[in-house]
Amino acid sequence: MATETLSPELEAVVARAAAAAPAYAALTPVERARLLVALADGLDAAKADLVQIGMRETGLTEARLNGEVNRTAVQLRLFAETVVDGSYLDARIDYADPNFVLGPRPDIRRSHIPLGPVINFSASNFPFAFSVLGGDSAAILAAGCPLIVKAHSGHPELSDATAAVALEAVRKVGAPEGTFQLVHGREAGVAILKDERIKAGSFTGSIGVGRLLTDIAAARPTPIPFFGELGSVNPVFITADAIAERAGEIASGFLTSVSGSAGQLCTKPGFVFIPEGSALPEAVTAAAGELAEHRLLDPRIAQSFNDRRDTILETAGVTPLIEGGVRFDDDGQGWAKPTVVTVSLDDFRAGHEGLVEEAFGPLSILVEVPAGTDLAALMPEFYEGNLTGTLHLSTAEAEGTTENAPELRALVAALSKQVGRVLFNGWSTGVAVTPAQQHGGPYPATSNDSSTSVGTAAIQRFLRPVAFQNAPAAFLPEALRDDNPLGVPQSIAQAGESGDWGKRFGA
Amino acid sequence: MATETLSPELEAVVARAAAAAPAYAALTPVERARLLVALADGLDAAKADLVQIGMRETGLTEARLNGEVNRTAVQLRLFAETVVDGSYLDARIDYADPNFVLGPRPDIRRSHIPLGPVINFSASNFPFAFSVLGGDSAAILAAGCPLIVKAHSGHPELSDATAAVALEAVRKVGAPEGTFQLVHGREAGVAILKDERIKAGSFTGSIGVGRLLTDIAAARPTPIPFFGELGSVNPVFITADAIAERAGEIASGFLTSVSGSAGQLCTKPGFVFIPEGSALPEAVTAAAGELAEHRLLDPRIAQSFNDRRDTILETAGVTPLIEGGVRFDDDGQGWAKPTVVTVSLDDFRAGHEGLVEEAFGPLSILVEVPAGTDLAALMPEFYEGNLTGTLHLSTAEAEGTTENAPELRALVAALSKQVGRVLFNGWSTGVAVTPAQQHGGPYPATSNDSSTSVGTAAIQRFLRPVAFQNAPAAFLPEALRDDNPLGVPQSIAQAGESGDWGKRFGA
Repeated sequence: MATETLSPELEAVVARAAAAAPAYAALTPVERARLLVALADGLDAAKADLVQIGMRETGLTEARLNGEVNRTAVQLRLFAETVVDGSYLDARIDYADPNFVLGPRPDIRRSHIPLGPVINFSASNFPFAFSVLGGDSAAILAAGCPLIVKAHSGHPELSDATAAVALEAVRKVGAPEGTFQLVHGREAGVAILKDERIKAGSFTGSIGVGRLLTDIAAARPTPIPFFGELGSVNPVFITADAIAERAGEIASGFLTSVSGSAGQLCTKPGFVFIPEGSALPEAVTAAAGELAEHRLLDPRIAQSFNDRRDTILETAGVTPLIEGGVRFDDDGQGWAKPTVVTVSLDDFRAGHEGLVEEAFGPLSILVEVPAGTDLAALMPEFYEGNLTGTLHLSTAEAEGTTENAPELRALVAALSKQVGRVLFNGWSTGVAVTPAQQHGGPYPATSNDSSTSVGTAAIQRFLRPVAFQNAPAAFLPEALRDDNPLGVPQSIAQAGESGDWGKRFGA
Repeated sequence: MATETLSPELEAVVARAAAAAPAYAALTPVERARLLVALADGLDAAKADLVQIGMRETGLTEARLNGEVNRTAVQLRLFAETVVDGSYLDARIDYADPNFVLGPRPDIRRSHIPLGPVINFSASNFPFAFSVLGGDSAAILAAGCPLIVKAHSGHPELSDATAAVALEAVRKVGAPEGTFQLVHGREAGVAILKDERIKAGSFTGSIGVGRLLTDIAAARPTPIPFFGELGSVNPVFITADAIAERAGEIASGFLTSVSGSAGQLCTKPGFVFIPEGSALPEAVTAAAGELAEHRLLDPRIAQSFNDRRDTILETAGVTPLIEGGVRFDDDGQGWAKPTVVTVSLDDFRAGHEGLVEEAFGPLSILVEVPAGTDLAALMPEFYEGNLTGTLHLSTAEAEGTTENAPELRALVAALSKQVGRVLFNGWSTGVAVTPAQQHGGPYPATSNDSSTSVGTAAIQRFLRPVAFQNAPAAFLPEALRDDNPLGVPQSIAQAGESGDWGKRFGA
């Protein structure tokens, strides 16, 4: 197992994680749940202090950060429930069958085990929910994998303070040393990702950095899965009837979604396709009023957003509807007001190379689409995978019986192919943490669209199936035993069920 | 979407698959099941002819190939049941919750959709079960993905004949043209794998070729999942008490497993760790009798096996127990008799660089291990991932109460970390096709150990999750509707369940 040499400090980090792996994996579900709850309790207790650091380092508001801590703590508690519930193990039991259609069949039982140490590269724009103890970290720890977090350079002090909370929780519940560790610096993160003792990686950030790390994970002597959540432009389609029914409501929901957290959300609606000549632009202008200025996360992001905004405004046919803009203060920090522009579909098509790339900040583009345009074919022309796609329908259209229902169904089918989450009559920002949530989507929305980075299904990413054939009860994992001491859901195939497979569907 | 230019012929193949994707995905579960059953029926009807071609092209026996056709047909019928059952969709419904702990929660529902066109590189050693209509193909079609099979060069005529059966079934049930296609030649396969319209790949074969294709899939502008089943040495551990109890039975089971299909199975036991000085070598010699000669699959495989055998026999300390060998006929075909050698653990350690690599053919190495050796630490010294690991225990040891039970448990835990399937008192060749089967394992056993290539769980590889938020019933997939017209299992989270998450596990 040849590995590039790590610095003594990083070697110690990886060695501790590797040493912790068997012991941490061997904790009972309730013990693992206790750690997750202790982490949540620790966040709650330290909230006031952590939020103050976060406000200073990220420019995000107190209300937003308070909400984010709550969300992060709830997420950890939900994963505690998930671990104890045990349905995530997908436990399957096929009893031996001496009369199996292909000859005697052994007893086979299958469950999932943790992959081993995982590195999580945290995000800048969610200093709690996608950072040190955020969704990926919760899923990694819930799965039973030791966690190494690479702190984001945008909030190093907050990362250290959150790590202190985590280490205290690990100590308090008596989890193995090395279950949780934090490192700083991209070089450290890359070196750890390359180490053969690391079994998976996760990431939330830009397409460029995400692809770089994905390629590193794939090129290792032993390739490992890398779950990057990269970028998204989140198309929205609004029908003429929806605008006729509630233009004001749609306009104000749109502005809230574009301007919240200064638009620095991977689910910000980047493109809104509306019928040519509709009343929506006017309604947006009317709803805008005096939009507040919001500090962007850091000077680099501010500069990058300002450049993207300039490019978009300079594209032929683009008309500012809400001017907005970025002001730089003496510290180099950028302060943004939201920008909304309109463009005709023809001009959008002509200028799409400068327009379609994600503008990470408070900016959105209304594309005015002539009647008769094939909406289902529209996005695939310009962009591959997205986290979300949204439709706004009128009350009658939602019934699915209007004349344009087939066209709307085709649009839903096209969006399903391109996104991880299809929304109706709502806005894509704000991602509920629930069992059915899907925060993912085809590349470049993610580097691996087999799973989600929000919601309890996220735990699957850090597990691997293992089967046991004719195992004596004494050597079976508890989740696969007939007496089921953990009470997990078991999917059981009895003997004698194979006789007439397929008969129902014969010619 | 810049893609390398395909030849007109391959362009037509990929274009047909891409065109078929939405129509094939839109078939009802019963329609898709009908195709799978028609494929099975077609194989059954053509069995006699197909087996004759297979015998000629692969040198495998009539009994083995007849059994393989049966297995392949049963596999297709089992997938038909899987598609209609619908639990593979993992349908989840979270009802809206106005009193959710983080604020009002929308209705979110999550299911899985097919990835799109998939290319499957078929194997040489299973001309039916891992070839044109084998396990990967069944899983791909069951998932709702158009299938392009790259035929193995070892049985081109059989591949064409099987493809004719498949095309007839596609026609018969009225599935979209382009649902099934066959191509020949590695260059064609690679060109198709690189095409952006292809959404996943599968493969069964060598580590070298598998890694090459895995790297191609990962390096595309849009990376895609690639599920390669590559190679494995399948360690076996036999205790002193098991040998004392039933040396003869173990010896004959071992020889059957090593020599069946001339050892050309990815699950052939390559290393057997036995206590130093045990009676097993003697029992193996006694059980051997007159072992039959068996033609190897093709001259290249025969030459490669002969070379590996030479290397192993020339390693210091290796003693032939059953000499075996390879004889080449005038056509260059190799005919093998099984070879079994013994080596002490010290000599194995000293010579492991020449010994550990898989010997694809009828050869196995008995490693004699001194008492007191830490068995759990043994395999990780030499080799990473394997498809299987096996233990033979005595009746008393199987109870888990003997003095060495902790040591055996540690060995089971170590094997679980290294393999996809842990067997007890059996042999790893012969992989039952059932819902709980796991045919996979850490690299280099597979290029992606998140799933299996045998059993119904294999379907997961070709699916992607999609969620629907606040979708009107008229726009929901049937599997997610409240009236559940398909009758699929739905995992439902009611409103009001989030109040006390984590409370049970608090400090």
